[in-house]
This record gives sequence, structure tokens and C-alpha cells, in this order.
Amino acid sequence: MSVPIGHTTWAIAEGYIPEYSHGPEPEMESHETVCILNTASEPAHVEITCYFEDRDPAGPYRITVDARRTVHLRFNELKEPEPIPRATDYASIIESNIPVVVQHSRLDSRQSENALMTAIPFGTD
Amino acid sequence: MSVPIGHTTWAIAEGYIPEYSHGPEPEMESHETVCILNTASEPAHVEITCYFEDRDPAGPYRITVDARRTVHLRFNELKEPEPIPRATDYASIIESNIPVVVQHSRLDSRQSENALMTAIPFGTD
Amino acid sequence: MSVPIGHTTWAIAEGYIPEYSHGPEPEMESHETVCILNTASEPAHVEITCYFEDRDPAGPYRITVDARRTVHLRFNELKEPEPIPRATDYASIIESNIPVVVQHSRLDSRQSENALMTAIPFGTD
Amino acid sequence: MSVPIGHTTWAIAEGYIPEYSHGPEPEMESHETVCILNTASEPAHVEITCYFEDRDPAGPYRITVDARRTVHLRFNELKEPEPIPRATDYASIIESNIPVVVQHSRLDSRQSENALMTAIPFGTD
Repeated sequence: MSVPIGHTTWAIAEGYIPEYSHGPEPEMESHETVCILNTASEPAHVEITCYFEDRDPAGPYRITVDARRTVHLRFNELKEPEPIPRATDYASIIESNIPVVVQHSRLDSRQSENALMTAIPFGTD
Repeated sequence: MSVPIGHTTWAIAEGYIPEYSHGPEPEMESHETVCILNTASEPAHVEITCYFEDRDPAGPYRITVDARRTVHLRFNELKEPEPIPRATDYASIIESNIPVVVQHSRLDSRQSENALMTAIPFGTD
Repeated sequence: MSVPIGHTTWAIAEGYIPEYSHGPEPEMESHETVCILNTASEPAHVEITCYFEDRDPAGPYRITVDARRTVHLRFNELKEPEPIPRATDYASIIESNIPVVVQHSRLDSRQSENALMTAIPFGTD
Repeated sequence: MSVPIGHTTWAIAEGYIPEYSHGPEPEMESHETVCILNTASEPAHVEITCYFEDRDPAGPYRITVDARRTVHLRFNELKEPEPIPRATDYASIIESNIPVVVQHSRLDSRQSENALMTAIPFGTD
């Protein structure tokens, strides 16, 4: 397959980066991840905007997903134009110039054993 | 983005507020959350109705999500017209006057390490 | 709301009832649950069929979800026409005479702390 | 039911096989599973392609899901044309000659208590 599949806009209403962690880094560091799959034969140019409860949105955060590649991006690592605050509720919109498939997951290791969750966001065009 | 995206009606069939918790409150208190994202340039007026196994529905619970904001609402905190009983199976319908994106999650800390789950509910218009 | 919403057919490809548990029963017993929400003003008559890897399907299991009620049914408790075997991979189809909303979840307490997962199944009509 | 339901193409953007495990094998071995349900009266011929961050895709991995059967396939066990590397981010596309229903889940037992997550992938035709 080298045709683009998915949607050009995805929305993740749940977002929260736990403030602390147990276990060896980086794999056991508490994190929120957005996984993006680009099945097309051209790069996908992606912009992420983060929404909060009591301030204006942050972003856009820009990343490129190469042709026939996946990127698993930790929200923890976003730096430009500003880092995402820890222990703060947020939500995010992912927009791409071509259809991509997005999945959201979190590893929470605040307590001594880790917890996981995942969902396919809401997608539209 | 400042156009509304999502659906005006969302349904969460799973609902259960664990009766007890381990760890520091509020972040490790067992809770059920409905996350609502409003990407529009006007406020979203939202009504939540809760369904049970053996009694009539409760609600509506009314909240406002401001323009370009997200609200992560714990069902634990709903008080008017009545609190949601603990350790009781329920389901919920979220209705909005404009399209919003909804996600459901639970943190269960009844045992000494927390567990997480999340899903995008069923959406329709 | 008293109109039916959802789908008349739902498919859960993941199914597995863990064989053992830690913690007080019934709330910490390992279990698989199908949550069904009926927002209509009439009862929903539901049939569940379970599929396996190496034998013919089991069922139908019949349940009624009253008007404006939810049922959270543990697969563990299905008895007629036959119980679902433990520690066995299965999948299920949920069919209803009117649209309902379905969600699937599992609590796994085989190890000393419980784990949770949930998903909205695939829905169609 | 013996008609095919679902989609012929599914995309799982999240993929990661944890590198180590706690607890008795095989049930507590860390694993990623793709669950496929074929409700049709004929076999489904399925091909899986795995995408990575920095190399070309692997596959196709070929499996058959018999009529009215489910297969819960661990990515850990894929061998031909090559095994999936551990502790490596990947994504996958599942394509079938007839509609099937797909669900993705992970059991992570790297720490001493297991964590679970599940989602219905993005489906299209």
C-alpha cells in the first residue's frame, strides 16, 4: 500500500502529562504519545495545536512524517513554540496536508507499576 | 482552527465511579472523567444525562465549555441536580448546542497501583 | 432524550476472560463486560453470539435492556445456552432490534494490582 | 449471522512490543495482539504490513481466518518474512479480501503488575 489513508484532521480531547515517574527512563517515564502513520508515497506535513482550560491554545507544533513511515511523538518532548505544562489538562488537534492515521496513548508510572491507555481520536476532513 | 468539529451528541455506555482510592488526592483519587474539546469561536452549552440499570435517568447536568477551550470534568464532582452514586453502573449522554469532541477515561486506584482506561464515545448528530 | 441512538449490530474482536483473580469479589474479580445503553422509550431485545478460534460460535445469549436503561453484563455470567470458557480467546457480535450504544471493557486482576482496558466496538446497521 | 461485516483495511498507528516481562508465560508475557473476527461463511485472507520510523515497511505477513472464526495474533510471533523488532515503535496495516473486524490490544508486564490497553483501529474500504 502506498496510498494515503486516514483523515486530515484528528482531535484528542484527553490530554495530561503526569508530573512524575517510577522506573528506568526513557521507556518507563510517564508520557503521552501521539502516533502518526503515513502510508502515502509523499511526506505528511503535520501541525499540532494544544487547547487548555483557562488560556489560549499553544502551537502550532510542526513535524514531518516521511513517506511510508510512522512517528510516535511524545508530547513531553514538544519545545517549540513552548513546552506543554505538566500535570495540566489539555486537548489537541492534529492537522495534516494529506490523510494520516493517528492514535493516542499514555503511560503513567506515577505509582510503582505502570498503567496504560490508548484510543483512536476523532477523525474528520 | 476556530471552526467547530465533532458531534452534537455523544454516548458513553461504560460508567462506574470506584468507591475508594489509594494515593494522594486529587490526582490519584479514583475518578471518571469526560473530556470535552470546543474548537469553535463561541461557547458550547453542554447537557449530560446519566442512565442507570434500575431507575430513571439523572440530570441534565449543565456545563459551558468556552470558545477554543477544553474542560475535563470528573463525574465525581457533579452535584446538581444530584450526585452520581459510587460503585454503581451507569451510562451517559452528552449533548451540545454546537459540535464538540468528547473522550472518556477512568483512573482506578482501588488497589495500590492505579489502572487507566480511555475511549472515544459513540458520536452522532 | 428518548429516541434510540447507536447501531443495531456491534462487533468486539477482542475477548478473553482471565482465569484467576486477586482481591475482593465481585468488584475485583477478573471480568469482561459489555455495556449496553438503550436511550429509546421501548425495550431493546439483544442477542449476543460468541466466536472462537477452533469451534463453531456459541449462542445466541438473549438479554433485554429496558427503555432508558443501561445494562453492564459480565461475559463471565453468561450461562444459557452454555458458559464462555475461561482463558480462551473469543470475539462477540451484539445484535439488537433497535439501535443501542455498546462499550466493551475488561478488568484483569490476575496479578496483585488490577489492569483495565476499554473500547467502543465496531458498529454497523 | 454469516454475512461479512467490518472493513477490508484497518490501520493501527500505535505499536510497540515491550522487551521484557514479569510473570508466567505465555499469558503474562508482554505482547501486542491484533484480534481479527471473520463473521462470513468463507475464509478471510489477511495481509499485515508493519511501518517503522526509519526503515522501509516489513511484510506482508499472511494469515487466514476461517469462516465464522476469530484469530488473536500476537505480533511477537510473526516470523515470516522477518520478526518484528522488540522495543521499537511501529505501526501496522491489516488488509483482507473480505470485510473483517479488527481490534488491537497490548499487555505490558515489564513492571511487576501488568497493564492493558485496547482500541478499535481506523477502518476503511
